[in-house]
Amino acid sequence: MLIRDATPDDWAAVWPFWHRIVSAGETYAWDRDTPEPAARALWMAPANRVSVVEDESGAIVASAYVRPNYGGPAAHIANAGFMVDPAHAGRGIGRLLAEYVLEQARSDGYTGMIFNAVVETNPAMKLWESLGFRTLGTVPGAFRHPTRGPVGLNILFREL
Amino acid sequence: MLIRDATPDDWAAVWPFWHRIVSAGETYAWDRDTPEPAARALWMAPANRVSVVEDESGAIVASAYVRPNYGGPAAHIANAGFMVDPAHAGRGIGRLLAEYVLEQARSDGYTGMIFNAVVETNPAMKLWESLGFRTLGTVPGAFRHPTRGPVGLNILFREL
Repeated sequence: MLIRDATPDDWAAVWPFWHRIVSAGETYAWDRDTPEPAARALWMAPANRVSVVEDESGAIVASAYVRPNYGGPAAHIANAGFMVDPAHAGRGIGRLLAEYVLEQARSDGYTGMIFNAVVETNPAMKLWESLGFRTLGTVPGAFRHPTRGPVGLNILFREL
Repeated sequence: MLIRDATPDDWAAVWPFWHRIVSAGETYAWDRDTPEPAARALWMAPANRVSVVEDESGAIVASAYVRPNYGGPAAHIANAGFMVDPAHAGRGIGRLLAEYVLEQARSDGYTGMIFNAVVETNPAMKLWESLGFRTLGTVPGAFRHPTRGPVGLNILFREL
């Protein structure tokens, strides 16, 4: 596995699993039918530091971004987003990428990281808790899950 | 007092107090030196429904925006922001505008409203609590207040 900063050309390899994940409507509070240009604008935004994971074959199997969650007097708090290609789930890629991103955010000078909207039924909750994130609060019923109905959105935080 | 939807021309009257409030660095997690075009892009964004308050003299003394806080499966949760010209503080304008905005958001189909970052020392906390908002959680030390040092950012929510 190689984890590195993304280049603009990497987006073409991220988009297929980005689309698969967002269109499933189970984990991200973005439009399920987000078109490719809007998706690229979201994920590859100039304010984002984007990473990708290459597996042994050179395929890109995951991506993450880190950016300031706020501006001005609170710009030292980071936000991040993660996507692992579902075809490569269960290989520990999410954890490796998360550990990389946490270290990168710390060395970039952030003092904490917030996730604004983790669907409470997302299996990744266990990963985040094992990495030291705690749930600050839950927005009740904020996410309309396609099979579970209204579920909460957890707000997670950890110091860096 | 007249509360109405903003027109693009209203921004010129909002900007002076917008700038005064943000540059004070005590209540908003935006860059204190946000230039006017960037401020306009933030406040008057196409996704925002913006309101203004005109006082008896026709002067614009406050403004608010409402927008979806998330997309897709959570787009029914609103976010809002409020600014009252400090020169007109203490006249109950903030409460009037907040009541108007809550009713507008409800009639626009939102089922809840979240404030993502209310500085815990902001006197407006009392107003929000009196209007039924509760603090879901607090991001510890996330806001560097110019005189009080690091203070928390409260995440507030209420159903609509």
